[in-house]
This record gives sequence, structure tokens and C-alpha cells, in this order.
Amino acid sequence: MRLVTYRLTAASEGRLGIVHGGLVIDVEKLGATTGTRFPATMLDLIDQGPDALAALDRALKETDGKRAPGIAVPVENARMLAPIPRPRKNIFGIGLNYVEHVAESARTLDTSKDLPTKPVVFSKPTTSIIADGEPIQHNAAMTQQLDWEVELAVIIGKRATRIRVEDAMSHVFGYSVINDVSARDNRRAGQWIFSKGQDSYCPFGPAIVTADEIPDPHNLTLWLKKNGEEKQRSNTKHLLFNIPTLIADISSGISLEPGDIIATGTPAGVGAGRDPQEWMWPGDVIECGVDGIGVLRNPVVKIGE
Amino acid sequence: MRLVTYRLTAASEGRLGIVHGGLVIDVEKLGATTGTRFPATMLDLIDQGPDALAALDRALKETDGKRAPGIAVPVENARMLAPIPRPRKNIFGIGLNYVEHVAESARTLDTSKDLPTKPVVFSKPTTSIIADGEPIQHNAAMTQQLDWEVELAVIIGKRATRIRVEDAMSHVFGYSVINDVSARDNRRAGQWIFSKGQDSYCPFGPAIVTADEIPDPHNLTLWLKKNGEEKQRSNTKHLLFNIPTLIADISSGISLEPGDIIATGTPAGVGAGRDPQEWMWPGDVIECGVDGIGVLRNPVVKIGE
Repeated sequence: MRLVTYRLTAASEGRLGIVHGGLVIDVEKLGATTGTRFPATMLDLIDQGPDALAALDRALKETDGKRAPGIAVPVENARMLAPIPRPRKNIFGIGLNYVEHVAESARTLDTSKDLPTKPVVFSKPTTSIIADGEPIQHNAAMTQQLDWEVELAVIIGKRATRIRVEDAMSHVFGYSVINDVSARDNRRAGQWIFSKGQDSYCPFGPAIVTADEIPDPHNLTLWLKKNGEEKQRSNTKHLLFNIPTLIADISSGISLEPGDIIATGTPAGVGAGRDPQEWMWPGDVIECGVDGIGVLRNPVVKIGE
Repeated sequence: MRLVTYRLTAASEGRLGIVHGGLVIDVEKLGATTGTRFPATMLDLIDQGPDALAALDRALKETDGKRAPGIAVPVENARMLAPIPRPRKNIFGIGLNYVEHVAESARTLDTSKDLPTKPVVFSKPTTSIIADGEPIQHNAAMTQQLDWEVELAVIIGKRATRIRVEDAMSHVFGYSVINDVSARDNRRAGQWIFSKGQDSYCPFGPAIVTADEIPDPHNLTLWLKKNGEEKQRSNTKHLLFNIPTLIADISSGISLEPGDIIATGTPAGVGAGRDPQEWMWPGDVIECGVDGIGVLRNPVVKIGE
């Protein structure tokens, strides 16, 4: 299933929807037509576990071809919010998780040229999340080195600590796309939260695709275009630490919870690693794609004086 | 006012309380006796702003000497939760924010001996928070270098971005105490979230003292004892980046929200900086105090096999 959080007007609350046949089907309204009380938000759905998801899938199939038009809107009329507008903790980011990106970072940033022996974990505050279509803020008073990073995002399905590698994939609810925006000139004594955690630095979406629809998350092409020109292209098979390793590693000390998000790292081709270096500027449009999941498209806009 | 989140039995929900005259006065019940609907949680109270706090203060004074006994319990019978059990984003930590701690860190950890030119910001996940009295987890499979750090915690009162230094103190709701527990041997390529963000690594409390009761937050003695023996003692007047500077700096890129927490950094005397080095082990009891605010006391317990 392809799940979204959407709204019909700028002022209305976010609603849980299913993208199906060019439509966004409203989950609450779908429940009303089938006499079921479905979860109202993405976090509610994830909290309720696999049975709630299965019930939703059944309702979708049972009503196929006979759904009232009022319970759905064309995708192009729905205004997307981030699939989880406000997770329970900061988004986990993973640094230096593709071999060629480790090399390009060592050339131009202050990172080591050696491959990391453990995942490099950092966080992006919940306030950094923006939706598909929303603007990435460029504040020239703060940065002259605003960079892009397309990443596969993993959405956690249940609360657990010390998850074993062999059990880890059963903890995945689904997948999405994140642009791990970074102000390279805003790093602080090695810590990345400020340079990667500013408002709008976490474009996320447009949808969460449930795990059952992605047969092999370690064989997905991911790419990024700036103003239509391709800047990054790789495949998740090149992840240095794969998804079960990341889940086992983070949860070895930090409890994971439903709706927690792990941005799994970016491949080569970031602006800092290019020769000459390139950055994002107001007026640019950045598209991030993960095949089978979706395309996340955000303009860059000027803020500040 | 000295505000707490507490419960009467292990299974009950957290309730907002005021510590006053050796009692915890239940805010919701106080409201019922005065015909006012008071906020149910600490976050609700902070969200409602200064008027709600003033109304609560009035109700407390108006009912002095005539409160029904049923609306309060002796402090020693109340089980404290963390004052904000679940903030909206990870706790902000500030590294290397006392001069002598910069020196001791450079001697024994991999940090620079130069004073930072900008605040060193990192985060501790919301899941790392524990209350006064709850155990700090020691997992010997993960760490042999579990360390302590007493810190003054600043609680943000309103949502804002790009706060000016001269306005910053009006954004403070109150103050509390945090022990910024760190597994020194769990650092990852310089990033601190994993070594400082594991479950139970953020003892927080016991209370939030509102800003009006702390005339000068830059002149507070803070100290830490392990098993009754003093290990840290300093004063917040030695903060390298003071509170308005931290608020202005973080909010220059990251929106601050009601209930956000900034742990302002620790002075010298951490275990890693001692000769010989000392660590926390199961059976130890750690007390962290900030004068005028309170004492946070947590045992260290063994987990894992």
C-alpha cells in the first residue's frame, strides 16, 4: 500500500490516505462506508500494528469498483504533508554509508578516508521535516554551502530495544524518500545536528510504501536531479551497513518506536564532492527519487533579509 | 513555582503537580476546587503561555490555608516522572561549554584543546529520558566507560525561530537538572548521539522551577556526587556560551518549541577527565544538584546478561 498524509485545503488537518489508481482514498471515510473505525493518522496506523494494516488492505480490495466518489480525490488535488509530520523522536541519519561517498567526503569535507567500522549516527530535529513540494529554506546569512543528499528512509513499525539482525526486517513498517539537506559550512566541532537539522532540511515523502510491496529494499535505484540534471545515481545494494544492521545497531542502545525514521545515507554525487563544488541556491528545484517508492520534489527559496 | 509531573501508583498516568510546603498539589484537582480548568500536563501548561501560569499561581495563593486535603499528597508519597516525559524533539545537549571541561576533555577524549568558537550542539533522543529515582542502565556488553555530567537544563516557553540574544531570556519557561550520561567508548566518528543517547542516559528532574523564581541563572552552583563523594562542583557563571547565546544560536537555524530542553553543558570533574579515570558501575548512586532548583538522584543498575 502507498500511504500518505494529506489535506484538501491549506488550513485543514492532515488526514491519512491511500494512493490507489490515481486517487487519494481517505482512510477515515473508507472506514465509514465499510462500518470500520480506521486509524486517523499515520502514527495511529503504525501503532495499531499489522492487523490494522491488513484490515485496511481488505477494505480497499472489497470496495474496489464500488467506492463512493466522495471518499477520494485525484492525487493532483491533494496537498501532501510529510507522511509522518511529527515523529516521536528526531530522525536518525546515517553518515558515510556508501563507499564512494566516504571517498568524496574525505576529499572535500573533514571526514576520514577510512570506511567507518560502525554506523555513523546523527539526528535531524522533528522541526526539520517538510513535505513534498514545500520549500527548502536558503538563508544566505547562515550558509553559502547548502547541499543535497538523496536517501532511502526506513520507517520503523514497532517498539523494541536490542533487535537482532535476523529479526530486524520484521520491524520495518515501510519505506520512503528523504533529502538529507546539509549546510556544509555550519558544522560544529564535528557534530552534524546543526548543519543538517535546520528548519526545512528534511524533505520527506511523498508517501510511505509498506514493506510488503518492496520485495528487496537492498536493490533499489536512487537518484537526484537539480533543475532536471542528474547529480546522484546509485543503488541501495551498495549500502555499507544494510538495513538490518542499522536497526540492530541503533536499537542496541536506543529504543526504536513506531514511526521512527532512519535515513540510511547518501551515495556519491553530493555538491561538496563535485569538481568544481556546487551548492543549492534560491530558484533551484531538487528532485529525489527511489525507484518503486516515489519522487520527492522541493524548490529552494530565499529566506531572511 | 516548582512544577512536577507525578503519579500516585506505578500504573497511573502522569499528572501535573506543584510542589509547595512539602506537598505535591494536583493541578487538575486544584482547578476543580476553584472552578477553573487547568492544563493537564506540563506541555499543556507551557503551550498555554504566561496567562495560564499566572492563573495557576493566583489559585495557589488564593487557596492557601484552605485547600482540601484530598488535592495534595506528601512529596515523599508522589512518584516523580520526568517533568516533561516526552518533549517534541530530542533534548539539545551542549558540549565543551565550561573552560576547564574543555581542557580535561582534550587530555583524555578526542576533542580539541581550543575553546569552541560556536556552541557544540548534539542531541539525546526523547527515549533517553528517565525520572528522578529511575535507574541508569549499565550494559557491560556495550560499555566499560559510563560517565556522568551534571548540567543546568533550560526549558523553552514558546515557539520561535531566529530569537535575538536580547530577547532570549523571555523565551525561557524554567530550569531543571539533567545528568548527561555518556558511554565514552561508544562514540562514532565524532558523532555523540549514540554514546550520549541510549535509553536512560538522560536523567531529568525532579522539577521544573519557573524562570521568575531564579533571579540569576548565570550564578547557580552545580555539583555531582557519586556514592556521596563530590566529583563535580562549579557555577553557571563559568558557562562559555551563556543561556541567551545558546537560545539565539540554536534558533538561528532550528525552531524552538514549548517544552524543548537545552542541557547547557557540564563543568570539569567528569570520570574521563580524572586521574585515574573513574566510571559508573552497577550499585553506584549518582546525585546531581543545581542550587535553587533541586537534586536528581539515580542508581546505576546492571542490564543485559
